Amino acid sequence: MDNSERIAVEIPKITLRPIGRIRTPFSVATGTPIQSSAAQGAEGTIEIFPEFAPGLQDIEGFDRLWLVYYFDRASDPQLIVRPYLDTTERGVFATRSPARPNRIGFSAVRLLGVEENHLRIADVDMLDGTPLIDIKPYMPAFDHFLVERVGWYKNVSPAGAVADDRFERKVP
Amino acid sequence: MDNSERIAVEIPKITLRPIGRIRTPFSVATGTPIQSSAAQGAEGTIEIFPEFAPGLQDIEGFDRLWLVYYFDRASDPQLIVRPYLDTTERGVFATRSPARPNRIGFSAVRLLGVEENHLRIADVDMLDGTPLIDIKPYMPAFDHFLVERVGWYKNVSPAGAVADDRFERKVP
Repeated sequence: MDNSERIAVEIPKITLRPIGRIRTPFSVATGTPIQSSAAQGAEGTIEIFPEFAPGLQDIEGFDRLWLVYYFDRASDPQLIVRPYLDTTERGVFATRSPARPNRIGFSAVRLLGVEENHLRIADVDMLDGTPLIDIKPYMPAFDHFLVERVGWYKNVSPAGAVADDRFERKVP
Repeated sequence: MDNSERIAVEIPKITLRPIGRIRTPFSVATGTPIQSSAAQGAEGTIEIFPEFAPGLQDIEGFDRLWLVYYFDRASDPQLIVRPYLDTTERGVFATRSPARPNRIGFSAVRLLGVEENHLRIADVDMLDGTPLIDIKPYMPAFDHFLVERVGWYKNVSPAGAVADDRFERKVP
């Protein structure tokens, strides 16, 4: 345990700086698709801040991209949540709820086109103006796994599901 | 453009606080699997810091979990990289290289068991002691997409591939 304690103390505080922002048709949580798989083709754009644009080289060859982003309008973190697709409370790490201890989300969106530092995308499921943290190529060889057990999701049907305001920060 | 500028100014600085740490057999980058899909069952454990343990409720029902973590020993960010699987330079956002502007990684590991705030996992591809930022359930309905175009990866074979030290921070 001595060794474990030593490593814990050394863990650095982590600060992220957005590389761009995501523009979508969704200004509030209510009515926003709950996953890119439920977004039915909804289109958006990404503006990459110019200093990061050189990192986009070669990206046009991919059908899909993982976007890693910050749920900047999510409510305070909760460890127990009632997910959009369920009526029972669940541990937050067994859900994809945005009200997480670290409010990082990722979505695999479809890439429609690249023009300099702007990307046109489809299947967007995030709020307009969401800070973008990273882009990674979607790769079936890395990202497809056969699984049988999907916990409490086994009884739900996520197709076409949209959010409500339960995890949205309330402005007084 | 006035509206765009206004939103850029409002983007908050993002600070993350690890929820735990990942223990793996890999102490240096050289020889570490480059993806969980290439990890050939390598086993590890996760220690969730006790204050976050209530969020693990219901997690035992899932075969796989996405781990979101921080590449704490990656070298300084590069916008152009020569990826492990290629001999040509690529834009970093068209690769899964750890030397990224925001050094966030994610891997879908297999869940073997849960004992209080410890998870036993397999298919690990990260360094021992890696700070854990988030856990999300792996869900085929959310995470499987059929894609045809995978850019420069179309000519490479990632099975069993391991890293070298090209993206590891050098200690003087």
